[in-house]
Amino acid sequence: MSTVPGLKINPDRLWKDLHYTCQWGTGERWGQEDHQTGMQRLALSDDDKKARDWFVSTAESLGCKVTVDSLGNTFAIRPGENDGPPTVAGSHLDTQPTGGRYDGILGVHAGIEMLKVLQDNNIRTRYPVGVVNWTNEEGARFPCSMIASGVWAGAYTLEHAHSLADVDASGGTMGSELERIGYLGKVPTSHKSMRLAAHFELHIEQGPILEKEERKIGIVTGAQAYEWNYIHLKGRESHSGTTALQYRRDPLLAAAQMIRDANQVAKEYGGLATTGILKLKPGSINTIPGEVLFSLDVRAGQDSTLEQMLHEIRKQFSHIASTNGLVDITWTQTTKSQAVQFQKEAISCVRQACDKLFGEKTDQWTMDMISGAGHDSVYTSRYTPTAMIFVPCKDGISHNSREYCKKEDCANGAQVLMHSVLAYDTQRK
Amino acid sequence: MSTVPGLKINPDRLWKDLHYTCQWGTGERWGQEDHQTGMQRLALSDDDKKARDWFVSTAESLGCKVTVDSLGNTFAIRPGENDGPPTVAGSHLDTQPTGGRYDGILGVHAGIEMLKVLQDNNIRTRYPVGVVNWTNEEGARFPCSMIASGVWAGAYTLEHAHSLADVDASGGTMGSELERIGYLGKVPTSHKSMRLAAHFELHIEQGPILEKEERKIGIVTGAQAYEWNYIHLKGRESHSGTTALQYRRDPLLAAAQMIRDANQVAKEYGGLATTGILKLKPGSINTIPGEVLFSLDVRAGQDSTLEQMLHEIRKQFSHIASTNGLVDITWTQTTKSQAVQFQKEAISCVRQACDKLFGEKTDQWTMDMISGAGHDSVYTSRYTPTAMIFVPCKDGISHNSREYCKKEDCANGAQVLMHSVLAYDTQRK
Repeated sequence: MSTVPGLKINPDRLWKDLHYTCQWGTGERWGQEDHQTGMQRLALSDDDKKARDWFVSTAESLGCKVTVDSLGNTFAIRPGENDGPPTVAGSHLDTQPTGGRYDGILGVHAGIEMLKVLQDNNIRTRYPVGVVNWTNEEGARFPCSMIASGVWAGAYTLEHAHSLADVDASGGTMGSELERIGYLGKVPTSHKSMRLAAHFELHIEQGPILEKEERKIGIVTGAQAYEWNYIHLKGRESHSGTTALQYRRDPLLAAAQMIRDANQVAKEYGGLATTGILKLKPGSINTIPGEVLFSLDVRAGQDSTLEQMLHEIRKQFSHIASTNGLVDITWTQTTKSQAVQFQKEAISCVRQACDKLFGEKTDQWTMDMISGAGHDSVYTSRYTPTAMIFVPCKDGISHNSREYCKKEDCANGAQVLMHSVLAYDTQRK
Repeated sequence: MSTVPGLKINPDRLWKDLHYTCQWGTGERWGQEDHQTGMQRLALSDDDKKARDWFVSTAESLGCKVTVDSLGNTFAIRPGENDGPPTVAGSHLDTQPTGGRYDGILGVHAGIEMLKVLQDNNIRTRYPVGVVNWTNEEGARFPCSMIASGVWAGAYTLEHAHSLADVDASGGTMGSELERIGYLGKVPTSHKSMRLAAHFELHIEQGPILEKEERKIGIVTGAQAYEWNYIHLKGRESHSGTTALQYRRDPLLAAAQMIRDANQVAKEYGGLATTGILKLKPGSINTIPGEVLFSLDVRAGQDSTLEQMLHEIRKQFSHIASTNGLVDITWTQTTKSQAVQFQKEAISCVRQACDKLFGEKTDQWTMDMISGAGHDSVYTSRYTPTAMIFVPCKDGISHNSREYCKKEDCANGAQVLMHSVLAYDTQRK
């Protein structure tokens, strides 16, 4: 029973499946696909529904029982010799508004490929194993990333998640959109209702390190801390031709100074600061704006560094607001994620899987890393042993139509993912 | 014949008419109006059509012949003893997206009030006099301010004006919207087809000077130079959590530095620089934007100062683009207006009208000024003697719902406007 030592995933099948489902998000027809064409598959959109339907029907055809919870998180579980919580491969099928084909998608497809290999070889694992598709990981459509694994881990309430509004103000909420596409399940979203024995996630690195260091696999031991805020500035709308500089209360000029200063603080502390959204009112070429809203994403390797950076940024922003005569500045935190350390027993399974693949060259082809981005694994690690596997992506580019992961790297990652899951299944008590 | 020395406008009637037509742009019902509620009456909108219809029917009821040209400029002309080009009061009925009730609107209504006074007193002027409503003065909906008087003066072609697209991307152009609301006239838009003997424009100051200096009337002798550009920056979209600062090509960070530096240049040269529009792509909290587009409105009292400022700004922007690793920076000029000197014979009529109103206190209550904003008068002055009359507005605020001009100041302005028109009519050869 249990694992076959030489068990191998099928690189061609994985590659084909992955690009097949990308038709839902590019409008391509299968057979005409360009493996570097970008994707737009926002969470709970019609395209997301089609990808989800494929995931469910494929998993069922591979002997899985599929459970959809109250946030659309979809658990495809393949029975084992014994009952018990499953060891899973998890990631997400949603993308950024102009995202790539590998971010999240690769991890889910590598899980499906694992199920196919187990089925082909008539493998019966000791306990159930499976694949999870987490909802709205990107936070691009409903502005809170990893909200659905966050609710699973108790970091947010279900009500909060259901009430999140579409950032494009379509009028939809996460709750209404789940219902619309038929993915509002009855099982409560919770680590208590849907227990997991362990969670492994394969993902593209989304940074340039593996490529620069010429490594094939990153063994991810944790994730950096980050916090997202919206900063809302109120100034005074007035005519651009008749309002002398000294009489202005210009919130955009203040925002410009803030964005620049947040970048300076990030430089000083070795962290990151990014503004990806900026909106202003009323938006006329000869009117000084009255209001500006912008996002601020701040990250650091350690919780304490993040706190120091935010303290410094808040102080500077208040000063800038005051010297620009602004009427008001308000901060609204939407996401906070502490630095995370993954569990040793899960990391150890990834190392074993790398050894199986690379043998004596493991040290040459792998390296330990900290994840720069947040992932659903950050939340699963609160209640279940978790580790991640990174593979290189071209020029470190992600959240971009040029995102690309070579077929060989996809295959290496899927191979390590499968053997990590199987190693955990073999060794668990 | 000709003028009656003691001829007076009716302040109550002017005030009532002005706020009556503001129902089209606020949704108020007449009788419930708040004289400080802001306006949204974008050019060629349904509300603009209703205000235009009122203008036409009122002017016709006062014995005027109304001519609509190919850009919807509407000329209401009252016959005189002799034929010939009319001496007109002109301004505009369109507003900013969140504008006030006085910018432009006051000038047109003061013209209508003049027609009422002439009718009440059975005055027959030597030559025709009239009122003009210029189309899309604000440039808020179709992004080129004073485009319609600009075409009249030969600064733009009619085709260019007709093809201007709605900034809100409704799909409408100036041409299609003129047709839709029934204001696409047959008379060519040109100073040759619709000659004017002189053009006087009453307007709120839109700045704080008259209020601070405790003056009732500004005698406007010219207008400052300005230029509008859109700056388009291309960087590289990438993930905010995994892209180290040194690998970024962040166009928003560059735009922030540019906006700040343009402000510094304006300070050094005693001019103005304003960004009122900023858009970015793709607009996601954890994605470094790939593209940013922003507007830049630069102004100065002298043409040469404006040129120096723009030279300096372009140099600095190129440097910022390069130090931020941007892929591209492009400038698109949408409007350029040279510094303007109004004609002495027209300015002299405004002075005479002030003397009539203030007598020996003229020096105490008036001052000469340069207009900070552009106005249709800038274009009419190319082909006809032109002058402007400014009245104070509260706190110098304009392009804002809090824009306010006291009833007494509206009346003073209208009184000076009427007597300026009549003085010109009396003195012309």
